[in-house]
Amino acid sequence: MFLLVNLKTYESGTGADAIEVAEAAARVSEETGARIAVAPQAVDLRDVAKRCEAFGQHVDSVEYGSNTGASLAEAAAHAGAGGTLVNHSERRVRLHDLAGAVDAAHRAGLEALVCANNAEQCAAAAALEPDYVAVEPPELIGTGTPVSQADPDIVRDTVERVGDVAEVPVLCGAGISSGDDVDAAADLGAEGVLVASGVVKADDPEEAMRDLVT
Amino acid sequence: MFLLVNLKTYESGTGADAIEVAEAAARVSEETGARIAVAPQAVDLRDVAKRCEAFGQHVDSVEYGSNTGASLAEAAAHAGAGGTLVNHSERRVRLHDLAGAVDAAHRAGLEALVCANNAEQCAAAAALEPDYVAVEPPELIGTGTPVSQADPDIVRDTVERVGDVAEVPVLCGAGISSGDDVDAAADLGAEGVLVASGVVKADDPEEAMRDLVT
Amino acid sequence: MFLLVNLKTYESGTGADAIEVAEAAARVSEETGARIAVAPQAVDLRDVAKRCEAFGQHVDSVEYGSNTGASLAEAAAHAGAGGTLVNHSERRVRLHDLAGAVDAAHRAGLEALVCANNAEQCAAAAALEPDYVAVEPPELIGTGTPVSQADPDIVRDTVERVGDVAEVPVLCGAGISSGDDVDAAADLGAEGVLVASGVVKADDPEEAMRDLVT
Amino acid sequence: MFLLVNLKTYESGTGADAIEVAEAAARVSEETGARIAVAPQAVDLRDVAKRCEAFGQHVDSVEYGSNTGASLAEAAAHAGAGGTLVNHSERRVRLHDLAGAVDAAHRAGLEALVCANNAEQCAAAAALEPDYVAVEPPELIGTGTPVSQADPDIVRDTVERVGDVAEVPVLCGAGISSGDDVDAAADLGAEGVLVASGVVKADDPEEAMRDLVT
Repeated sequence: MFLLVNLKTYESGTGADAIEVAEAAARVSEETGARIAVAPQAVDLRDVAKRCEAFGQHVDSVEYGSNTGASLAEAAAHAGAGGTLVNHSERRVRLHDLAGAVDAAHRAGLEALVCANNAEQCAAAAALEPDYVAVEPPELIGTGTPVSQADPDIVRDTVERVGDVAEVPVLCGAGISSGDDVDAAADLGAEGVLVASGVVKADDPEEAMRDLVT
Repeated sequence: MFLLVNLKTYESGTGADAIEVAEAAARVSEETGARIAVAPQAVDLRDVAKRCEAFGQHVDSVEYGSNTGASLAEAAAHAGAGGTLVNHSERRVRLHDLAGAVDAAHRAGLEALVCANNAEQCAAAAALEPDYVAVEPPELIGTGTPVSQADPDIVRDTVERVGDVAEVPVLCGAGISSGDDVDAAADLGAEGVLVASGVVKADDPEEAMRDLVT
Repeated sequence: MFLLVNLKTYESGTGADAIEVAEAAARVSEETGARIAVAPQAVDLRDVAKRCEAFGQHVDSVEYGSNTGASLAEAAAHAGAGGTLVNHSERRVRLHDLAGAVDAAHRAGLEALVCANNAEQCAAAAALEPDYVAVEPPELIGTGTPVSQADPDIVRDTVERVGDVAEVPVLCGAGISSGDDVDAAADLGAEGVLVASGVVKADDPEEAMRDLVT
Repeated sequence: MFLLVNLKTYESGTGADAIEVAEAAARVSEETGARIAVAPQAVDLRDVAKRCEAFGQHVDSVEYGSNTGASLAEAAAHAGAGGTLVNHSERRVRLHDLAGAVDAAHRAGLEALVCANNAEQCAAAAALEPDYVAVEPPELIGTGTPVSQADPDIVRDTVERVGDVAEVPVLCGAGISSGDDVDAAADLGAEGVLVASGVVKADDPEEAMRDLVT
């Protein structure tokens, strides 16, 4: 299972706290053999990438050139990222920009992990040939009710519909906070999970990650 | 073959001129048996729909309720539209809004015709189960060089890739201005074409439509 | 006092119901001498404009030409509109598009009524020299608690700050549903009010408008 | 005069090259006493801020919390930035997001430098009380023809119109590449200049900065 920890713009996931989560992720990953990547804000990406596998939270469909305030895939790669989220429910993009962002990620050597709301939109995303799609029902994000329990069919349906379009591994997210949730997701066909508040706002993020992957 | 005439915001496609194109479309359609729909600006939709088959140029992913400046699918249907474009290259939308717009169109009884730039994005759109996808390479729009001649492979590829995802008929557009272009598109597997300036800016739009469908 | 009735995409403000509100607005206006404009969805603009003063809900910063799914100021003017809302809280626009929309409205002979959230943003809007600015605190929209009662200072401050920038009349909106609310707004310096649900969702829209302006 | 060097997403302004420009900026600033700030991509912000005064290229109107792919003002401040651009012509924002971004910058202790296209839009921006407004005619960006020469009136008008709204210093940008251009801008009332390609794509960025400020 692949665990991706999205630090969002949480205070406890910014600056020095981002580094702490990254160091904890590295320890838990080494201990358990689980793959754990951390997705910090862009300003913290380089420091996080020195400590653990790092993902961007977003890249734009741009190249080197005259763009201001954009997230360039090459710059994320140079900062040490190995992949990037795109189209998170908090940063939705237009279809052609999504295609452009997946292409930009690949051009820069990043894995592209496309988020979407449901099975149908994940199937659409799969046609763009990203490395992962993640189904995250927006209404469950931050609730503490895991998607694998609240709506198991959405995970199954996503695995099935994505499989009809392309061979792209499916992750799931929203409300996941325990190892049982992760196991349930795996049983439904997910090859990984996205977690945010469940780790970043935990009293002990390291323990929270350990619990998720064991 | 299905001919969709997009009036855009062309001066010769606004107000009284929109009605003229609509009346010409009705005459040509009756004469030739070809299916011709006209997509005017929203303010002209009702008047056009009284005269010929009419499509909206865009609908938003909204329902009846508290939305200002939005294009409601139900309102387009009440005005007489039978379908709507979505995601035209001049009005791109985010993936989840595209899914929502297709759903909104179907909820209101409209056909949903999703435009996209290339085969891959058309395949993504097809996963959302619209009634048509239309491939329109943006760099050819308004050029007078037909897509069927400038880039025949893009039409073939779109038909093939869309077919892998769902049974959705493929249209094509960009640069089409003659019956030969339409025949070439049909030979490549397209079941219809989108035309804009080739009709709206023609000296004689009626003659231009007649030439396209015969 | 100027009363602008925004029909939004309310079911009771769409199609035949939009026409009913327009006819009622015309009767109340004639009876009372009050200026009442109705802002329907674009598809209903022409039919509404035949019956009463009509405003668009939005115009884009575009000209005649190659634009799809856009709201062209000239097309709204040809359909009979005398003005248009821009930057409603349900259709916010970028600063340069706001400037472009005000210019487009004026180019087409439409009055431009710019909405904004608070005194500061109204002052910014006033620098673009629209015909009206309207302060509508988003948190009060649709609540039934009138802005003139919930936050009288926001109206006073807006009148003062706008006055420092340019001579642009200030309207206010959000939660207004009675003639007392309108009087209170006038006492605070507003030269008109925006109403939506208070009229459109009233059991008797005509009576609701009459109550507001007398 | 204040010189702000926008590194955009230029290849020669990314990663190690961003650091080189930052170190050169620090040397030129120390030598000449001129104030020079460098605005790198977010991933390079921390490394640049260790070497010279640093600005963000953009901040979003968000707070600590559940936002993905956003530019948080507090995170930029923690990374060492002293200010931020907002509303650059390559990253335009909606009026209320612009107000929110200025507020976010101030909340985090950053200076807010708002870019806009012309005198009118700069006056609108000034009503939001940023620390600087910068007029950058988009058609001159990257041309090598300095705004102070191509359109001196736009600088004068901006100084005048902004002065009518609030006491906010005016900068100018677009096409500036020599000390003479900077002097001309100062003569027109500008208190600083924005430069991008003129420095970042120069054979010797250090020499280019030295030429601009002496």
